[in-house]
Amino acid sequence: MRNFEHAAVWEADRDHFIHPYADFANFKAEGSQIITEANGVHILDSTGRKYLDGIAGLWCVNVGHGREEIANAVSSQIMKMQYYNPFGHSTNVPAAILARELASLTPGTLNHVFYSTGGSTANDAAIRIVHYYFNQLGKPNKKKIISRIDGYHGATYVAANLTGIHATKIGFDAIGRDLIHHVSAADTYRGGDGRSDEEYCDFLVDEFERRILQLGPDNVAAFIAEPIMGAGGVLVAPQGYHSRMHQICKKYDMLYIADEVVTAFGRLGEWFSSEALFGHVPDILILAKGITSGYIPLGATILSDAVHDVISQPQCVDGVFTMGFTYSGHPVACAAALETIDIMKRENMLDHVRNVGPHLQAYAKKLLRHEIVGDVRGSHLMLGIDLVSNRQNKEGFPASSHAADVVFARCKENGVIIRPIGNRIVVSPPLILSKTDCETIVDVLDDAISAATQTLQN
Amino acid sequence: MRNFEHAAVWEADRDHFIHPYADFANFKAEGSQIITEANGVHILDSTGRKYLDGIAGLWCVNVGHGREEIANAVSSQIMKMQYYNPFGHSTNVPAAILARELASLTPGTLNHVFYSTGGSTANDAAIRIVHYYFNQLGKPNKKKIISRIDGYHGATYVAANLTGIHATKIGFDAIGRDLIHHVSAADTYRGGDGRSDEEYCDFLVDEFERRILQLGPDNVAAFIAEPIMGAGGVLVAPQGYHSRMHQICKKYDMLYIADEVVTAFGRLGEWFSSEALFGHVPDILILAKGITSGYIPLGATILSDAVHDVISQPQCVDGVFTMGFTYSGHPVACAAALETIDIMKRENMLDHVRNVGPHLQAYAKKLLRHEIVGDVRGSHLMLGIDLVSNRQNKEGFPASSHAADVVFARCKENGVIIRPIGNRIVVSPPLILSKTDCETIVDVLDDAISAATQTLQN
Repeated sequence: MRNFEHAAVWEADRDHFIHPYADFANFKAEGSQIITEANGVHILDSTGRKYLDGIAGLWCVNVGHGREEIANAVSSQIMKMQYYNPFGHSTNVPAAILARELASLTPGTLNHVFYSTGGSTANDAAIRIVHYYFNQLGKPNKKKIISRIDGYHGATYVAANLTGIHATKIGFDAIGRDLIHHVSAADTYRGGDGRSDEEYCDFLVDEFERRILQLGPDNVAAFIAEPIMGAGGVLVAPQGYHSRMHQICKKYDMLYIADEVVTAFGRLGEWFSSEALFGHVPDILILAKGITSGYIPLGATILSDAVHDVISQPQCVDGVFTMGFTYSGHPVACAAALETIDIMKRENMLDHVRNVGPHLQAYAKKLLRHEIVGDVRGSHLMLGIDLVSNRQNKEGFPASSHAADVVFARCKENGVIIRPIGNRIVVSPPLILSKTDCETIVDVLDDAISAATQTLQN
Repeated sequence: MRNFEHAAVWEADRDHFIHPYADFANFKAEGSQIITEANGVHILDSTGRKYLDGIAGLWCVNVGHGREEIANAVSSQIMKMQYYNPFGHSTNVPAAILARELASLTPGTLNHVFYSTGGSTANDAAIRIVHYYFNQLGKPNKKKIISRIDGYHGATYVAANLTGIHATKIGFDAIGRDLIHHVSAADTYRGGDGRSDEEYCDFLVDEFERRILQLGPDNVAAFIAEPIMGAGGVLVAPQGYHSRMHQICKKYDMLYIADEVVTAFGRLGEWFSSEALFGHVPDILILAKGITSGYIPLGATILSDAVHDVISQPQCVDGVFTMGFTYSGHPVACAAALETIDIMKRENMLDHVRNVGPHLQAYAKKLLRHEIVGDVRGSHLMLGIDLVSNRQNKEGFPASSHAADVVFARCKENGVIIRPIGNRIVVSPPLILSKTDCETIVDVLDDAISAATQTLQN
């Protein structure tokens, strides 16, 4: 990219693009880095610098960047049939075939797909559907949703309110304040507080049940949870947690919504993790990101037969299911998803993750040699690292020291992208990376944490 | 498409795809029509039948189906850089250039683009931003939104609640019931009730002002409106309505949000209609659909300088703008939008619409010859027709007679797609159609209404 082009794009961006999570204190002076090329596990910026993309774009580019097969699938679909609405009784081939494919890959009776355009809309739709479901059952008071502190569920108004990360709330409003309630994160590093994993799990399940009883089981409709919390910082629950929480849901006639936007499509070595790794089949499964490897926006809210049976009855004479997006089942997005799934099958990508994933986790343990590293955890290609000023009390550095940002900046200088979140560092690379790539990410982190130790402790 | 393929897709669709607006009373028996090909102004189904697409997919395929230029732009962008996140201070070329292009095409100081994935998310984001804006201004009580009966604003939880179409509410819940309030639709056909347009406009403006005073101006944040109501049935406001409503907004320190998801990108012969046709520049402009001609999901919430100045200050020490979608500014969607805009410029599409649009409106007036047609109205390539059982009192047919569906079925038999909405028929073809195509649509409607007259009056 020539200099004057770079300057023009930089200026256009600074003057006109409102970025998610912009830091307006310095954005106008600094502007943005311009990412101009992407291929395999690498991205390039407009100055020609190359980086190993340790976060797969944003937990999504699972099959890697610049896949010609997906470009071809997308452009073929555009030339064949790029859009016609799916309202009423009209369909398109990729949306129908993808719905069948998802039903076949998902566990249990998760057989019915409501499409939208990303994780936010898929979670938002789930809440509307849960409310509709209990209205259909003649339980109009059963509407409250329990989510978790540090859970991330997206950016529509309702999805942002489901989200339990404190920093995302500042300056923004809650809607329907009495509708969404948060219980503790399941975080075996910090939450356990000296208890055994089993005692900690008992505590979490008990807290959940007490909250339901406090709100009134007749008022509580559903629980929503990520199998491993993503943007919260790769927080791992104690063993048995999810299936026990689901048991409590069943006890009180509540639905369990599993937000697998991050954990599905191979990131944990499985198509979906709820059943394979956490021993339960949710009532509603939320998918996005990896479903198209981020190539085209797509989200899916998948309902069990039992939920679908209830919502697929007309709500009144001549009633139709008056809910849906223009782009529900967009043929181009669904074609990208079908090709993504085909690539994963052709390249045995789940096997690959089962091979490199444990290597990343094991190799990353060496970061524990740093005094400021409190924890290294995760599963397969989801890695979380906690920076602490004090290992004993697990206290992080003050926000003003921007601890993870300091590490991020040094990693970037050395050609590796990780994701800083306060005192936490997240790694979620494309699934196609090699063991050597895993080691590169960790080695660069190792150096950056060394450098940060000096900065942060002074 | 071979018969066995058709059968397999039909079955996959019936068993696994939850359609927006599905009529579950007969969906399992009937299943869906499968649209398999699309080109120019035509779509084809899996049996090889060809239709003139009189609704542009769903008000969106403005530059026509099957554009090779867009397929190429999309696949080039995928191969160059298909996704990297836009969070914080990271950008991509198409998103930055498109933001600048939108700022340059939009009127006034609408210069700052928050991207999402469609009209629903763009409206939903507008409400979150409006609330954030008044928090920033130290007016935390100023949060209520006034929308309109028969307005359509999308399908996220909040967007669905903004929507004022009664039929979409049945079985679904409202969230934050005291947050969103509805005033009358601006509908010169039914609303005027014998008054002159001027008197009717006075009534609507007065009703609006009284509602604000009733809710308390310190509690009311914004008004949201489509320039011409779309899914409500192409309802046209009396002259001067929008600018007078905006004046009231200014009087009470409220923001005016113009939902131009349908009316922008040439449908009314202009890039955007608010200023060009309705004499005012909104504070927030909502775009989707035509922005990419529906090829790839994209939405945009465009803020004026004044609104941006307020929200682009950190909300606290180290505060960042903690709001955004994974797919905010998706490079592939933005590349599709840039190519769509280029096509519209290269082919002088606005001029074409200014030529064929009035012809469609004038030619369609002949439908008034039918006793059951109460009104034919609209502007350029937005046409609305009201079916009535009684012209004097303007009463529609009972819901059980499915009046517009009867017309739709006959049109479809004769190779033309229109959109039935209760007693209303909507036409919103691709902008590239010819005068002859306009006449074909109207002539087929003319025949279908003749046939329906017999059915409905018996």
